[in-house]
Amino acid sequence: MSSWTPVTCRCCDSATVQPLVVIELAENVQPATKQWIISKIESHAKDGGAQLLAHPGEDDDGDMILVSAPRCTLLQAAEYLGLAKRYNDGSMMIFSYKDRANFMSADDVEEFLTLAEKQYIVKYELNSVKAPQADSIPGVPVKKGTLRPRQTIFQKLEKIGVIKQMYPLHEKQKLDALAKAWYSNSRYWGQPLDSIQSYFGGPVAFYFSFLDFYILCLLPPAVIGLVLFLLPWESMNGYILLAVFNMLWSTVVLEYWKRRGSGLAHRWGTLYLTTHFSEPRPSYWGTLGHNPVTGRLEPYYPSWRRKLRIWLGSVPVVCSFLLLVVAGMVGFYKFEALVSDFHRKHGSVLTSPLLYLPSITHIFYVNVLGMIYRTVALMLTEWENHRVESSFQNHHTVKVLVFSFFNCFAVLFHIAFFRQDLQLLRKRLASLLIVSQILNQCTEVLVPYVTDKLFAGQGKKLSEDDPLVDRLRAQGSLPAFPGLFGEYIELFVQFGYLSLFSCVYPLTAILLLLNNITEIRTDALKICRLFRKPFAEPVTSIGVWQGAFEVLGFVSVISNCCLILLSTPVQGYCQESGISMGKALLVTIFLEHCLIALKMIIAFVIPDEPSWVRTEKAKMEYNSLQALTHQTL
Amino acid sequence: MSSWTPVTCRCCDSATVQPLVVIELAENVQPATKQWIISKIESHAKDGGAQLLAHPGEDDDGDMILVSAPRCTLLQAAEYLGLAKRYNDGSMMIFSYKDRANFMSADDVEEFLTLAEKQYIVKYELNSVKAPQADSIPGVPVKKGTLRPRQTIFQKLEKIGVIKQMYPLHEKQKLDALAKAWYSNSRYWGQPLDSIQSYFGGPVAFYFSFLDFYILCLLPPAVIGLVLFLLPWESMNGYILLAVFNMLWSTVVLEYWKRRGSGLAHRWGTLYLTTHFSEPRPSYWGTLGHNPVTGRLEPYYPSWRRKLRIWLGSVPVVCSFLLLVVAGMVGFYKFEALVSDFHRKHGSVLTSPLLYLPSITHIFYVNVLGMIYRTVALMLTEWENHRVESSFQNHHTVKVLVFSFFNCFAVLFHIAFFRQDLQLLRKRLASLLIVSQILNQCTEVLVPYVTDKLFAGQGKKLSEDDPLVDRLRAQGSLPAFPGLFGEYIELFVQFGYLSLFSCVYPLTAILLLLNNITEIRTDALKICRLFRKPFAEPVTSIGVWQGAFEVLGFVSVISNCCLILLSTPVQGYCQESGISMGKALLVTIFLEHCLIALKMIIAFVIPDEPSWVRTEKAKMEYNSLQALTHQTL
Repeated sequence: MSSWTPVTCRCCDSATVQPLVVIELAENVQPATKQWIISKIESHAKDGGAQLLAHPGEDDDGDMILVSAPRCTLLQAAEYLGLAKRYNDGSMMIFSYKDRANFMSADDVEEFLTLAEKQYIVKYELNSVKAPQADSIPGVPVKKGTLRPRQTIFQKLEKIGVIKQMYPLHEKQKLDALAKAWYSNSRYWGQPLDSIQSYFGGPVAFYFSFLDFYILCLLPPAVIGLVLFLLPWESMNGYILLAVFNMLWSTVVLEYWKRRGSGLAHRWGTLYLTTHFSEPRPSYWGTLGHNPVTGRLEPYYPSWRRKLRIWLGSVPVVCSFLLLVVAGMVGFYKFEALVSDFHRKHGSVLTSPLLYLPSITHIFYVNVLGMIYRTVALMLTEWENHRVESSFQNHHTVKVLVFSFFNCFAVLFHIAFFRQDLQLLRKRLASLLIVSQILNQCTEVLVPYVTDKLFAGQGKKLSEDDPLVDRLRAQGSLPAFPGLFGEYIELFVQFGYLSLFSCVYPLTAILLLLNNITEIRTDALKICRLFRKPFAEPVTSIGVWQGAFEVLGFVSVISNCCLILLSTPVQGYCQESGISMGKALLVTIFLEHCLIALKMIIAFVIPDEPSWVRTEKAKMEYNSLQALTHQTL
Repeated sequence: MSSWTPVTCRCCDSATVQPLVVIELAENVQPATKQWIISKIESHAKDGGAQLLAHPGEDDDGDMILVSAPRCTLLQAAEYLGLAKRYNDGSMMIFSYKDRANFMSADDVEEFLTLAEKQYIVKYELNSVKAPQADSIPGVPVKKGTLRPRQTIFQKLEKIGVIKQMYPLHEKQKLDALAKAWYSNSRYWGQPLDSIQSYFGGPVAFYFSFLDFYILCLLPPAVIGLVLFLLPWESMNGYILLAVFNMLWSTVVLEYWKRRGSGLAHRWGTLYLTTHFSEPRPSYWGTLGHNPVTGRLEPYYPSWRRKLRIWLGSVPVVCSFLLLVVAGMVGFYKFEALVSDFHRKHGSVLTSPLLYLPSITHIFYVNVLGMIYRTVALMLTEWENHRVESSFQNHHTVKVLVFSFFNCFAVLFHIAFFRQDLQLLRKRLASLLIVSQILNQCTEVLVPYVTDKLFAGQGKKLSEDDPLVDRLRAQGSLPAFPGLFGEYIELFVQFGYLSLFSCVYPLTAILLLLNNITEIRTDALKICRLFRKPFAEPVTSIGVWQGAFEVLGFVSVISNCCLILLSTPVQGYCQESGISMGKALLVTIFLEHCLIALKMIIAFVIPDEPSWVRTEKAKMEYNSLQALTHQTL
C-alpha cells in the first residue's frame, strides 16, 4: 500500500504531498499497532482522529510513519490557534476559516503557512487525539496498552515506548538557502529573521532577534568603554559617567526591545494568539478525580501536595546548592590568600600568572556546579508534578534564575561590597570574561566546526539518489535540540556582568560584543546542522526572560551606586573636600532613589508598542467590530 | 399620540414599558425636531436608528422624551459588551444572543439585566446613532444644525443645546429598599454590594466595596496603634513594630483587594468585557483628515500638536501650581515662627491653642488650592484635546494625583526629612486628621442631612398621584453626580497619611476608621438622595487607583525607614551603644532594600485572583472551546 492517505475533499487535493513530520516507532512494534496508529492519524476529528495524512514509509512493517496535513486541517487549526495573516487589503488580520477567500494566498497553503507553523499544527493535532472510550492498543500487551477514556493517545504511545521519537523534517533546499543567508562569510551584519521565523518558528526567531538587537545595543557601551579605557578613565567623571550610562542603558534597551518584539510579533502574526485550556503534561500523574474545570474523571494531584513538595523538597535542595556556592566562595578566598602569600614570599615574574589561578579554578567550580544544578532543577520540577506545561516552565525558570544569579554574581557582590576591594573585582571580572570567552570559542566554535565537518562528510554519503527513508533516518539520528534555555541564561549572565559591574572594567562591553558576534554565528550553525529540527510553538515574545533582564536592570542601580561611592576617585574627592562618609552615603542613596525613579519614568514614557503596531491593532479590532455589526444587521 | 413606540417583534412584547432614561429638551425646541429625534430613537439599526422605544411625555410639544429598550436590543447589546451572565448549569458564561435559551432567566429581561446595565445600554445605543450622510436637523437653523456624515447625532444635539440633559431614572421602590438596606441605623457592618451594583452599576459598587474593605483593613492598625498609644509606645520596639507593620500592611491590603475585586467582577459578570474601538469624545475637534484606523474622513488633531500643548502648556501650569504649594509652605513656616515667637514672649495657657493656628491656616490654604487646581486640571486636559475618553481620563488623573501627592505630603516630607522635627510632624499630622475630620462632619454629614430633610419635604409634595412627568422633572432638577474622583482622592490622601507617616502618630488609623465609618454612610446618602442618578459603564476594577495606591505603598518604605532612623528612641539607642550615624544609615538602607524586596515577593506570591476565580475562568474558556469544537464538527 505504501502511499499517502487519499484526500477526501476537493480543496485539499494536490499533486504531491510534502512529508512534514516523522514518527519513528520502536523496532519490535507489530504491524497491527502501526496500522492502528495510521488509522488514528487519518480518521476524521468526529471519529476521534487527527485529520492528517499518513504514509507508512518503506513498507507496512517498517519502523517509520510519515505525516503530512491536508489544507482544510491546516487552515482550521490556524484559525483555532489565532494566527494572524495578511488580508487582501494588505493589513494583518486574525485568520478566519469562513473568510479565507479574502486572505492573501490562502489557497496556496505552501505559501500561506510557514513550514514551522505546519509542523507545529501536525504535532498539535496528533496531541489532541484522545481515546474515545476505554480501549486497548492492538498489538501491545494489555498491561501496557490500556487506554483510559479521553487519554491522549500519542503521549501514551511515547510513554510506553511504542513511539521512539517524533520530529519535524528539514527541507534541504530551504535549509541550505537559509544557512547561506544566515551564517555564511558574506554576511557581516543582521539576521534573516523572517526566514528564520518561517523555517524554525517563533522561539528561535525571537532568540536570534533579541541577540541581534542586543549586539547592536552593545555598540554604544563598547565605544564609551574603549574611550574611557584609552583615556585616563580613572578620573571621577569618567567613572560616574560610565556607571550612570550603564544604569539607564539597560532600561532603554529593554524598553526598545519590547517595542521591537511587539513589532516582530505583529509581522509574524502571533500577537493575537488565542489561549486555550491546557491539557495535562505527559508526565503528570495522580489518582483519578474530577477535574474542577472540565468535570471529567482524570488523574488529579492535589495542589497542597505539590506545595508540600515545593516547600519541603525543592526549596531545601535549592538552598543547599546555594550553600555550595558559598562554600566555593570560601574555598576561593582561602586559595587566593595562599597563592598571594606564596607570591609575596617566593614571587617572580614567572609566578605572577599564578595569581589568576584561584579565580580560574573557581570559575570552573562555578560552571560545573551550574551544570549539575541545572539537571537537579529539571528533576525537581518534574518531581513537583505540575499539571500544565506553563506552570512547569515557570517553576523551572525561577529555580535556574535564582541559582544563576547567586552562582555568577555572589562572589562579585561579596568582593565589591563586603571586601570593598575594587582592584580584585576588576581582576576577577576580566578573568571571568576572558575565560568564558575562551571556553566559548572551544565549546561553541571548535566543537561544532569539527562535528559539522564530520557530519558534512556523512551527509555527502547520503545523496539525492539514496532512498528517502535513509535520508530521514539520518535526521532522526541527530541529537535532540536542547532548547534555548541555556542560551538565554548565558545572555542573562552577560547582561549582569555588564549592567552590574562593568563600571570597574570598561572593556566589558567590547569583550561581550566580540563574544556575541561569534556566538550568533555558531548558534546558527548549531541549530541548522547539529541538532534535530525542533517543533516550535507560536509565541508572542521572549516571555519570562524580559522580566528577568528587567530585574537585573533594577539591581544594577543599587550595584552601580555603591561602586561609585567605593571607587578610589570618589573616595579621594571626599577626603580632599572634607565630606564625611555619612554625607557621601546620603548623597548616594538620594542618587539611587532618583535613578530608580528615572528608570521607572523612562519605562513608563516609552510606549511598549510602537505607534504603528497600535494603529494596526486598532484597525484589526475595528475591522472585526465592523464584521460583527454587518453580521448582526 | 402620547404612547410608547409599538414593538415589532413578538419576543419584545410586554404588558408595560418601564421608562429607563429621560431626554430633557431645551424649551424652545420645535415639535419637528422632537419628532425627528424620536424617529432616530425608534428606527431600526439598519436605518441608522437606536432600536429603542420612545415616549413623547405629556404631549408632542413637551420638553421631554422618555426612552426604554425592547428585549432584543438589550440582549444584543449585552452580547456586544461582553457581559457574563449565569448559565443554566449555574456557572457564569459570556452572554451569547444565539445561545440565550441556555442562560438563566434570559426571557425575563427585568431580572436578567440590572437596572444600571439597561440604562447604560440605552445611553450606549443612543450614542452610537450616527448621521448616515450629510444632513441637517429639522427645526434647527442650518448654521447650527448641519450634520457631517457619520457624526454622532446625540452628541451633536447636546453640543448645540437642543438636548439639555439626559439622565437615567430612579425606580422609587427599589431605591427605597436599597437605601433602607444600605445606610439605615439597623446596619452596623457591611454593604449591600450586589444591590448597589444592580442599581447604581459597577463604578459605584466598586468604590463602596473598596471603602468597605478598606474600613475592615483599618481595624488591625487601629488596634495596634491604640495599644501602642496607651502603653509607653515611644519605646524603640513599638516604634519599629508600627513602622514595619505599616509597610507590609499596605502591600497585603492592596493584594487582597485585587483578589476581592476580581471575585466581585466575576460575580457581576464584568471580568470579560470586550474592548471596542472607541469613538472620539464629544468635545474632540480638529481639521478633517483620514483616520488611520478606520480610513474615514473625520476631525483629526495631530498628536504632535497635542504633545506640544502638554509640554508647553499643561506641564508649566502644573509646575507653577506646585510652586504655589512651596510658597504656601514657606508662608506656613514664617507664620509658625511668628506665632511661637509670640507665644514664647507673651505666652499663657490661653495663647497655647494659637500654636495650632499656622497649621490650620495652611490646611485651609492647601484645600482651597487643591480645589482651584482640580478645576484647572480639568480645563487643561480638555484643552489638550484627547481623542478618546480613556486617554483623557488618564491624563487628568495623573495631573490630579501628582498635585495631590505634592500638596498633601510635601510639607510633611519637609518637616520629617529636612527639618527632622518629629514632634512638629506629629502635631501637624494630628491637626490634619482632626481638622479634616471636622470638615468632613460639616460638609459631608451636616449639609447632606439638612438637604435631605428639605428634599424629603419636597418629595412628599410629589406623591404617587402627581403626574409622572412632574416626578421625573423633580429628578432632573437635582444636581449632576460629581463622580467618584474626589472620593478616591480623599482615600488616596488618607492612605498616604497612614502608610507614610502614621508611625509617629499611632492614633492615625483609629481616627481614619471613625472618619470612614461615617463617610461610607454619608456617601451612600448622597448618591441615593442628593444627586441625579449617574450612568454607569460596566467596569472590571477600580482601575488606575489600584496603581496609585501601590505607588504610595512603595514610597511608604522609604518614608518609614527614615522615620525609624530619625526617631528619638533609635537615635538614643545609637548614642548609647556608640553606633556611628554612618553605620546606622547603612543598616537602615539595607533594611529598606530588604523590605522593598519583601513587599515585591509578597505581591508576587499572593495570586491576583483567588483560585475559585481562576477555576471559573478556566471553566469558561474550556466551555467556549467545547462550543467551538462542536460547531466545527
